[in-house]
Amino acid sequence: MKNIAILSSGTDNSGINAAIRSIVRSASSMKMKIYGVNWGYRGLIDNSIHCLTSRDVSGKIGKAGCFLGTGRPEGCFVPENIPKMMETIKKNNIHGLIVIGGRTSLIHSQKFVDMGIPVIGIPSTIQDDIVGTDICLGVDSAVNNIVKYVDKIRSCEFSRDRTFIVQVEGKTCGSLALRSAIACGAEICLVPEQPCDDISVIARDLADASMTGKTQVLTMVSSGWKPGVKALSDYLVEHMEETDLLVRETVLGYVQRGGSPTSYDRLLGLRMGFEAVKAISEKESGKMIGLRNNEFLRVPFSEFLANDKPMDKALMNLFHLSR
Amino acid sequence: MKNIAILSSGTDNSGINAAIRSIVRSASSMKMKIYGVNWGYRGLIDNSIHCLTSRDVSGKIGKAGCFLGTGRPEGCFVPENIPKMMETIKKNNIHGLIVIGGRTSLIHSQKFVDMGIPVIGIPSTIQDDIVGTDICLGVDSAVNNIVKYVDKIRSCEFSRDRTFIVQVEGKTCGSLALRSAIACGAEICLVPEQPCDDISVIARDLADASMTGKTQVLTMVSSGWKPGVKALSDYLVEHMEETDLLVRETVLGYVQRGGSPTSYDRLLGLRMGFEAVKAISEKESGKMIGLRNNEFLRVPFSEFLANDKPMDKALMNLFHLSR
Amino acid sequence: MKNIAILSSGTDNSGINAAIRSIVRSASSMKMKIYGVNWGYRGLIDNSIHCLTSRDVSGKIGKAGCFLGTGRPEGCFVPENIPKMMETIKKNNIHGLIVIGGRTSLIHSQKFVDMGIPVIGIPSTIQDDIVGTDICLGVDSAVNNIVKYVDKIRSCEFSRDRTFIVQVEGKTCGSLALRSAIACGAEICLVPEQPCDDISVIARDLADASMTGKTQVLTMVSSGWKPGVKALSDYLVEHMEETDLLVRETVLGYVQRGGSPTSYDRLLGLRMGFEAVKAISEKESGKMIGLRNNEFLRVPFSEFLANDKPMDKALMNLFHLSR
Amino acid sequence: MKNIAILSSGTDNSGINAAIRSIVRSASSMKMKIYGVNWGYRGLIDNSIHCLTSRDVSGKIGKAGCFLGTGRPEGCFVPENIPKMMETIKKNNIHGLIVIGGRTSLIHSQKFVDMGIPVIGIPSTIQDDIVGTDICLGVDSAVNNIVKYVDKIRSCEFSRDRTFIVQVEGKTCGSLALRSAIACGAEICLVPEQPCDDISVIARDLADASMTGKTQVLTMVSSGWKPGVKALSDYLVEHMEETDLLVRETVLGYVQRGGSPTSYDRLLGLRMGFEAVKAISEKESGKMIGLRNNEFLRVPFSEFLANDKPMDKALMNLFHLSR
Repeated sequence: MKNIAILSSGTDNSGINAAIRSIVRSASSMKMKIYGVNWGYRGLIDNSIHCLTSRDVSGKIGKAGCFLGTGRPEGCFVPENIPKMMETIKKNNIHGLIVIGGRTSLIHSQKFVDMGIPVIGIPSTIQDDIVGTDICLGVDSAVNNIVKYVDKIRSCEFSRDRTFIVQVEGKTCGSLALRSAIACGAEICLVPEQPCDDISVIARDLADASMTGKTQVLTMVSSGWKPGVKALSDYLVEHMEETDLLVRETVLGYVQRGGSPTSYDRLLGLRMGFEAVKAISEKESGKMIGLRNNEFLRVPFSEFLANDKPMDKALMNLFHLSR
Repeated sequence: MKNIAILSSGTDNSGINAAIRSIVRSASSMKMKIYGVNWGYRGLIDNSIHCLTSRDVSGKIGKAGCFLGTGRPEGCFVPENIPKMMETIKKNNIHGLIVIGGRTSLIHSQKFVDMGIPVIGIPSTIQDDIVGTDICLGVDSAVNNIVKYVDKIRSCEFSRDRTFIVQVEGKTCGSLALRSAIACGAEICLVPEQPCDDISVIARDLADASMTGKTQVLTMVSSGWKPGVKALSDYLVEHMEETDLLVRETVLGYVQRGGSPTSYDRLLGLRMGFEAVKAISEKESGKMIGLRNNEFLRVPFSEFLANDKPMDKALMNLFHLSR
Repeated sequence: MKNIAILSSGTDNSGINAAIRSIVRSASSMKMKIYGVNWGYRGLIDNSIHCLTSRDVSGKIGKAGCFLGTGRPEGCFVPENIPKMMETIKKNNIHGLIVIGGRTSLIHSQKFVDMGIPVIGIPSTIQDDIVGTDICLGVDSAVNNIVKYVDKIRSCEFSRDRTFIVQVEGKTCGSLALRSAIACGAEICLVPEQPCDDISVIARDLADASMTGKTQVLTMVSSGWKPGVKALSDYLVEHMEETDLLVRETVLGYVQRGGSPTSYDRLLGLRMGFEAVKAISEKESGKMIGLRNNEFLRVPFSEFLANDKPMDKALMNLFHLSR
Repeated sequence: MKNIAILSSGTDNSGINAAIRSIVRSASSMKMKIYGVNWGYRGLIDNSIHCLTSRDVSGKIGKAGCFLGTGRPEGCFVPENIPKMMETIKKNNIHGLIVIGGRTSLIHSQKFVDMGIPVIGIPSTIQDDIVGTDICLGVDSAVNNIVKYVDKIRSCEFSRDRTFIVQVEGKTCGSLALRSAIACGAEICLVPEQPCDDISVIARDLADASMTGKTQVLTMVSSGWKPGVKALSDYLVEHMEETDLLVRETVLGYVQRGGSPTSYDRLLGLRMGFEAVKAISEKESGKMIGLRNNEFLRVPFSEFLANDKPMDKALMNLFHLSR
């Protein structure tokens, strides 16, 4: 195993540059060569790939996103692209791939495993929806981003009778919302795993929280929660007379994933990077580096690809106990 | 003129605490007594008012919002409330009022002038829509808040082909959007003073900007721009095939006004506070403290109440030259 | 076990308010009463203590420091104070103590254990020098504070030939410096566990790093490293001709511990608070809540009081591999 | 006037990239060509210079420092370098120079004026020590940096009896310290313009401020104040018994000038850039762009080079009134 290519697929988030740093630096000490692929799988199609030296990763650890660029996997794996990707791999004499990305991106990398190219995955997504790891790369930075916005929103602390609804990412997994709700001291947290049939129940909870004398009530909502922030907000506006709640709705978009990575994500990225190089040098393939109880494991793709991440009950408990 | 009451009306923003600090501290050196009114005009109705000493304003200059609380003026001036407010004024032996707030809040204070109570206003609103002052208290902090969010959004700089649409406050006045657009290096700025008949023109501008090779194109929009962010965004999604633009829309809500004030707003608040005390001690009334070319003026309410602020042509020029 | 008093001793850092929040909220669900002691052990001497309700901890989770105040333990335990403290405990009918603090503060609490008052400790110090827990409360926030300053220092990236020396806290333990060095991508890290006999070796390392073409070289130093930042800095200034290094020295003081806590410290504080209440309700005493591999343990005081924390070899390895 | 070279001399600070942006963009609309010189005057000696297009300045406005690099003027103007610089100017057919920098850097540019090369200066230094302009580029960002650090230091608000001494830049001019002192609500401000003979007077002021019941007392000091922070700090430590003051000293170093520029500095940089291009296109030379009462003037070098900036009495008044 001499030449390894590394790519980041999916939306970019914090900590990826740290992973690339440690991959490059540890690989060079193991006499491997690392190739950086630009724009995710797209770079394999276009042969946009180049050798990375220790100098190339200098000063990148504090930068947001991924300095190689990322790209969505969708559309990359149409039949005519597969030979192009394989040609890039052969032309550059690549013996293995490290893929940094979310669930969909890792699923796609199985294709290379099937074609005999060893692949090691690094779970990186603020959706935090991957089974087999306690946390994904980028989540700590995203939660801290959210916390800072909510602190700012709440800092106008002497404004009265406000109900803040904050929507964060989470299509199928409420982890980001739940962590943020706990860290922000939210009164209510709405996650995809627990859809709601009757919004009036939530409205009553909000009115109750407001009546305890709090000047501000905070509701944290995952983007994938049903029936959705708009339905909730519409209901509250419609029933304002009854509930006496003045609602402010904030949809946190790209700001969640931007900015300088936290130290946690930098260390996690570095450690996952090392583990990935180690795994690939030991001829592993089709596995993802997972963190469980502070130890790094090699989780077979099959194990996490097939399963949805169950809701983190410990976190949900922590939320209910502390709010 | 011995006892002065101070209140903050409208939504809270940065710099108000600095104004209150200097009002209290300079008044005490002039042997005046300052009363703080809670929750805006509402506090006059409810007799929620108390004496402020030098110690009460210690450590407040760095805090967001207004430590007395603010409140909307709407609903306060129904006929049955007027005698209540006057009673509070008499009971506490108040000889004059300093009102910190936006246009609507200052307009309402004219009522007290008419009833013989001297009033001095301090223009404080991130809408920046008041004639007679170059800038309102809170605008600098709001622009810096916006700049930080956009920097964060843009920090993922290696993501491709993204068009960011960011909506900021500005019902009738584009000042905040314009200042933010210049500071952020936006490609397009859409303000209420220049409504748009034909969205396809904007779409073409965006596509052009994108085709010059920029990986990210930024559009800054005032909330009061017609036909609105939603219409623009819908159009772009619908015509994505033609324009090849992937659109991300962010509506910046309360985060614009939160957080610790900038040093500019702290100094502006302090200076406006002093000028207000000086004006009221010199028996002025019905006037607002305005800043023009670095000098403080006393602008009669009549002058700015009747007129909409014209668009700042120098700023618009600066935007067009620098983008 | 009905009435529990809580106090924070030592210098304040981030996450303490979160711990108090969860102690108060979980205790109330267990029908316990929580008393907050002001200014650390000093409040026990002065009987400065009051009951905390769920409302008292609302909105505190995002605040820096400790809202009860903290105080140094030194001088509190002179013989004449012990009866005063015991009187406060009896007068308020306190059945147990939760002490949040660093090593010295926890050592002092043994006094109460000896006198028959159950005590549970929460390890909270940015020194991170306590055996028996993987990390102390406040460390994550401190590292992120340091990272932000270093990012700012380094952001002027086109200035040439600068060697930055940054001193962070760490009297006997290099954990904070090491974590920061890794997260910042420092070239050199100097910790108390590894004193230096010959500064010329470090100077040569710095000159070597500088000659690889880096425009900036970063050295992270613990305050307890011998012979100290001043000696290093003096040496480098003296030998500037040979090494061609322009040195900038920054001593990070109180800024390390200030600011809003990170989400990690908020969750850690909440969880440690719960575990403390649980432990004390189960009649444990003389134990500290420790985190090991993501599990919470009850570590007897005797175990960590007697021993210095050994240097974290995994972290030192991570530093050497990634730099 | 066709080809203009631009260089940034001295230490880098915020807003320079905005100035370069507007110089490049407005020059291109006037059919001029702009050349960027790397590393200040050093780049003229080394012929390190290249043409800048509109694309080169895209996305730079939010970056710290100067993307061309800066360099100290010292040592550049030895006799053997002058012909090298002139050769670079001739070889690249440069018709004029725009120099961005502090007082020393602008003084050196007079050399080119004397040799017949038109020069326009932009005053950029956080020392803020240049006569002829109300404020220099970079000052607003530096003050906001300082404010943020002090806010963080002060955020641990329930720690008792602390006297914070914060040293900021200012060799001969106290502007930065004074602005920061006002914005932070400092109790004492020590500037180079007012050296102190008897430190015991300051110690008494501090003790008095502390005895009014404040938990924290803040002293802001310019680096050029005599006898200096160390002398003050030593005195206070020595006399701790009498004054009962626990002192914490912070020397803010490079962090003052780092980080993303404020919107004020971005707009100021853009506007100064335009004015510089306009001035040079109108065949002005040996002049600096100054801002006075919100208007831009062309100030002859002779006017400000010879004179020290007098202390800003309005600011000193504001400090005394508001503290």
